[in-house]
Amino acid sequence: MADAWLTSLITKTPQEGYELATTLSRRGVKYTQPDPDVLHKLRPEYANSADGLTAASHVIALNFQTVAAANNYWRDA
Amino acid sequence: MADAWLTSLITKTPQEGYELATTLSRRGVKYTQPDPDVLHKLRPEYANSADGLTAASHVIALNFQTVAAANNYWRDA
Amino acid sequence: MADAWLTSLITKTPQEGYELATTLSRRGVKYTQPDPDVLHKLRPEYANSADGLTAASHVIALNFQTVAAANNYWRDA
Amino acid sequence: MADAWLTSLITKTPQEGYELATTLSRRGVKYTQPDPDVLHKLRPEYANSADGLTAASHVIALNFQTVAAANNYWRDA
Amino acid sequence: MADAWLTSLITKTPQEGYELATTLSRRGVKYTQPDPDVLHKLRPEYANSADGLTAASHVIALNFQTVAAANNYWRDA
Amino acid sequence: MADAWLTSLITKTPQEGYELATTLSRRGVKYTQPDPDVLHKLRPEYANSADGLTAASHVIALNFQTVAAANNYWRDA
Repeated sequence: MADAWLTSLITKTPQEGYELATTLSRRGVKYTQPDPDVLHKLRPEYANSADGLTAASHVIALNFQTVAAANNYWRDA
Repeated sequence: MADAWLTSLITKTPQEGYELATTLSRRGVKYTQPDPDVLHKLRPEYANSADGLTAASHVIALNFQTVAAANNYWRDA
Repeated sequence: MADAWLTSLITKTPQEGYELATTLSRRGVKYTQPDPDVLHKLRPEYANSADGLTAASHVIALNFQTVAAANNYWRDA
Repeated sequence: MADAWLTSLITKTPQEGYELATTLSRRGVKYTQPDPDVLHKLRPEYANSADGLTAASHVIALNFQTVAAANNYWRDA
Repeated sequence: MADAWLTSLITKTPQEGYELATTLSRRGVKYTQPDPDVLHKLRPEYANSADGLTAASHVIALNFQTVAAANNYWRDA
Repeated sequence: MADAWLTSLITKTPQEGYELATTLSRRGVKYTQPDPDVLHKLRPEYANSADGLTAASHVIALNFQTVAAANNYWRDA
């Protein structure tokens, strides 16, 4: 992946940080399976499954831990 | 998602922090599957399954780690 | 949930901290499925399954990380 | 559980810390299913399953994170 | 494995750090199964499965936590 | 287990730290199932399964978090 998609972990608000965490989670999938057609075909498999959605939220929670720590938990915001 | 749903990780009590952790966990699901009808249909799949409920509690535990750290574990509360 | 069930993460001993971690883990389940009848019916599903018990211990381990950090690991106890 | 099984997270060596982590992991199971007969019956289910053993090692890894942090990683040992 | 594949956790940018996290995740697989033919044969099993891709992203998220902490979250970048 | 297999978490390089993390992960399995014959028989079950290998890499990632923190991320190496 040549494009620069992650230049900083710092965000203005916790919500932007949470959204960055969702981006990080998706990128982990794309690095493993770069073919957009395959990804598109697989989407219903997890987006319509309770287990798949919980697993997605799980990965976001881990990445949010990282982003939140990077931002000192936006304590001074 | 245009609405501001997360403006701070700081809460008055650990219990409010735990409840924020449940909100964070649900939002991870909604960011992945924004369609409320699909979410509604899937609810019984995890809310009536021991595995699904443990997995939900798992994600809440991770988000509670983040919220608790943000609040310095409410040590001075 | 109107009742105050979590007013502090501080405990006198590591063992009380571990027990608080089990409470936190159970509360994550109850927030997701508040109906006590459903919870009662599901109990054998995980309490009699090796996978279910390991998963329960997993969530407790995560919550114990939080409680232990809050108590500075009871280093001065 | 009335007995005092966890009075400190401090150990002399990393290996004792790792062994304490295995104790913590087993206790998480026992708090969830206190009946020793059920536990005995379930043992082959995970002790003879690759997935079950990896899951057990997973929980131990989490508890070892806690014990290692409590001991400042035995840096001065 | 005789080759030196990991000499530092420090990277110039968060994106390089994320890519190092993907390397760490793959190495965990290779240490467990060093045979490249087996690995090649298994690739479609996870790269074409929603669950497999989410699990891959999960491991990357954990390794990214480590790399990000090592780099002080690239706060001064 | 009477032998001393873990006397320190400190390693010279991140790669040695990663290799220690694989040792820790394997020990978690051995503490749970000490019989080498059973372990040998189970090896193909995870070493030839994409899910099993990802799960192994997952546990290594957790133990690497611990070892990396113990070594201050080898920042001065």
